Amino acid sequence: MGDGQTTYPLGERDIPTHWVNIAPDLPEPPLPPLHPGTLEPAGPDDLSAIFPPAIIAQEVATEPLVEIPEPVRDAYKIWRPTPLFRAHRLEAALDTPAHIYVKYEGTSPAGSHKPNSAVAQAYENAQAGIRKLTTETGAGQWGSSLAFACSLFGLECEVWMVGSSYDQKPYRRSMMRTWGGTVHRSPSQLTESGRAQAEHQSGSLGIAISEAVEVAARDPDASYSLGSVLNHVCLHQTVIGQEAIAQLEMAGEAPDVVVGCVGGGSNFAGLTFPFVRLALQGRLRTRFLAAEPAACPTLTRGAYRYDFGDTAGLTPLMPMYTLGHDFVPPPVHSGGLRYHGDAPLVCSLVKAGIVEARAYKQTDAFAAALQFARTQGIIPGPEPAHALRAVVEEALEAREAGEPRVILVGLSGHGHFDLAAYDAYLAGELEDPEFSAADMEAALERLPQAPAIG
Amino acid sequence: MGDGQTTYPLGERDIPTHWVNIAPDLPEPPLPPLHPGTLEPAGPDDLSAIFPPAIIAQEVATEPLVEIPEPVRDAYKIWRPTPLFRAHRLEAALDTPAHIYVKYEGTSPAGSHKPNSAVAQAYENAQAGIRKLTTETGAGQWGSSLAFACSLFGLECEVWMVGSSYDQKPYRRSMMRTWGGTVHRSPSQLTESGRAQAEHQSGSLGIAISEAVEVAARDPDASYSLGSVLNHVCLHQTVIGQEAIAQLEMAGEAPDVVVGCVGGGSNFAGLTFPFVRLALQGRLRTRFLAAEPAACPTLTRGAYRYDFGDTAGLTPLMPMYTLGHDFVPPPVHSGGLRYHGDAPLVCSLVKAGIVEARAYKQTDAFAAALQFARTQGIIPGPEPAHALRAVVEEALEAREAGEPRVILVGLSGHGHFDLAAYDAYLAGELEDPEFSAADMEAALERLPQAPAIG
Repeated sequence: MGDGQTTYPLGERDIPTHWVNIAPDLPEPPLPPLHPGTLEPAGPDDLSAIFPPAIIAQEVATEPLVEIPEPVRDAYKIWRPTPLFRAHRLEAALDTPAHIYVKYEGTSPAGSHKPNSAVAQAYENAQAGIRKLTTETGAGQWGSSLAFACSLFGLECEVWMVGSSYDQKPYRRSMMRTWGGTVHRSPSQLTESGRAQAEHQSGSLGIAISEAVEVAARDPDASYSLGSVLNHVCLHQTVIGQEAIAQLEMAGEAPDVVVGCVGGGSNFAGLTFPFVRLALQGRLRTRFLAAEPAACPTLTRGAYRYDFGDTAGLTPLMPMYTLGHDFVPPPVHSGGLRYHGDAPLVCSLVKAGIVEARAYKQTDAFAAALQFARTQGIIPGPEPAHALRAVVEEALEAREAGEPRVILVGLSGHGHFDLAAYDAYLAGELEDPEFSAADMEAALERLPQAPAIG
Repeated sequence: MGDGQTTYPLGERDIPTHWVNIAPDLPEPPLPPLHPGTLEPAGPDDLSAIFPPAIIAQEVATEPLVEIPEPVRDAYKIWRPTPLFRAHRLEAALDTPAHIYVKYEGTSPAGSHKPNSAVAQAYENAQAGIRKLTTETGAGQWGSSLAFACSLFGLECEVWMVGSSYDQKPYRRSMMRTWGGTVHRSPSQLTESGRAQAEHQSGSLGIAISEAVEVAARDPDASYSLGSVLNHVCLHQTVIGQEAIAQLEMAGEAPDVVVGCVGGGSNFAGLTFPFVRLALQGRLRTRFLAAEPAACPTLTRGAYRYDFGDTAGLTPLMPMYTLGHDFVPPPVHSGGLRYHGDAPLVCSLVKAGIVEARAYKQTDAFAAALQFARTQGIIPGPEPAHALRAVVEEALEAREAGEPRVILVGLSGHGHFDLAAYDAYLAGELEDPEFSAADMEAALERLPQAPAIG
């Protein structure tokens, strides 16, 4: 039975006052994005059509700490600090000497870490006089988080939801509408980008991004909002890791390894960057482990190159591990991990050997998630299920070696809207598509011509 | 904007060590249940076919405090203490001088207060050597809570789910299966009760209870488990109110009114009984407000009589406000409030004038829930939406009167599995069935012959 679990509760005053910017601590300065037309380094001006000045300032910030505006901290109080607990029951089930600590972001209204950036973006846009935010959403986590955030700051929110998800996840749609958001099935008839893709009715993240960007660019009162990948999004998420540091201090432990799942990278960045900073400063000896899906193994199989952030090639080129901007990942259930690239900041840490990446099949991830649900109660989202799979691996290694090991894992969200995936797993109907060498060969040929990196 | 919200975090050591038994503090001793055959007072022996001795002892306990077994407290640590926060944003939206405090039970794995009793029942049955628990579930909250609890204590869990809910709420089914439970569509072919009702394919709570009881009664290794109404269930839920007392003390406030929704009564009992006890002892001056649906207005329109707990008339008769044991409430969305009677302990407090009851239409409840979601983020379940409607009423009264008022409300669960109801509300398609005087006339004629009470 074990001891249930031990929690390390923080109060409101423990909500961080600053976001942690990893950029100044990196071994080498971050590479700039490139303008998609000129292939020259893109500066703040290139972003001003769709982002307000404060967000652009955060995107290119060079100071190690960026102050969190008080109204954003106030909004954080709705669900932060989030719980950190020791998973005694899982430890007992794995019969491991390892200590497993779980930082859980699923207690936010939208059910994941995404609102950490959504409220920051909604606030800065409201301050800049913007009246409407547009965005895309795949599985619906980011769209619902932004709808929630817009409801707090009095903004309209207009979401283009990938057609197939729109049909399969009606309750994520309902959630956005409950918070006052407008949801369009993408491709829609409302944009040129959508009308041009009308024959691809199942849609894609790339098309949805194009629609949201198009509407923001043509409406001076509207901005576009992105839920991952960019530096400012990673920055906003660092409240997670800072709280975890304080909570592990309460537990009297330092992590031997910190584990998170990686899609666009914002969850992983948020949990790990505050720890990475301490490690880079020589104040911690910690490994960092990025768990990604075998069906979309950006960090483990991708090329480190400049590539577009979207399928249509409208965004700046970013330096990242990529499977090719037109790669369409197979329909695995972790919709939040189906992205062809990764946050440049996370990629640079992988490139520098500071972060190790591992790819897992979704059936292995669901097996770990089920064991977690049946020992610790919480039903994990399919995305953090990959991180839990890595935790099981680490815990069993510790058992083999007969040595203690302190593992911290980010449980980025619950699986309340992903239970069809659990049904499929329990029925033995989950497939395990894997990215092939041939896929990569083909992708490399289609990468844009741009300066080499790495 | 307001201040976000203020939270009052407790630690594990603040999880109550005892449950509060209201029975010894009641103005008059509780009336006994009656045996359905003899109409004589039913004693502990009459319950021993389906409940283990420890549960029966809790059902008839006379001491004011009942110690919580340590393994149950350990299990509570998975999600308790639950949050209590002041809803500054809702206060601002209502422009009220009232202080609104929210005790939120939706952070449990199953998403409501139900696991508070489920883990206690699973533990006591496991201790008694029982290997399987059977139960019924309507909307799925209780079934998923019991499946979760059984996964913690190594018990099998077999759930009969009302046919129409089984079809409409596939994800609650998935949740039970994820925790290792078995879910049957009721009426099933597995029981005589089910086979006899095969023509009523949409099922009812009454049929599902009969199926679960039948299986428990014929299997010596199995017990039946009930999620509300009975004294021991109300007892288990009192951890809610005890934590709320400690949290309001942190806030330096005493409640003028405590508000909860009532279906079978366990949520209301759990929140209010610890406060009611202080009020009965003269240590608090607090009003208690029970919010129920106009479609099933047991406390406001029912007769205070002995009646069966189930539709088929197999259970003991209980003294309660009832709409008649064969009353089938219309299909409002708050499935957890569709019960023809109420916990005898709650009913006795209403009868004694200690608790006031009010009935609300579901559209009014959803309007309050939507306002809550758009100010405080959390999307409430349809059941506590009724309590929120009462909160709005109290807060606006305080504004009219220009006086402060401290309101404590129980938010018993989230609405993640009820978003279809929000869709219907937003589309203007929610209906407002109301219980009629003619309905009550008809019900009174069908009540069982039993000694008069009240």
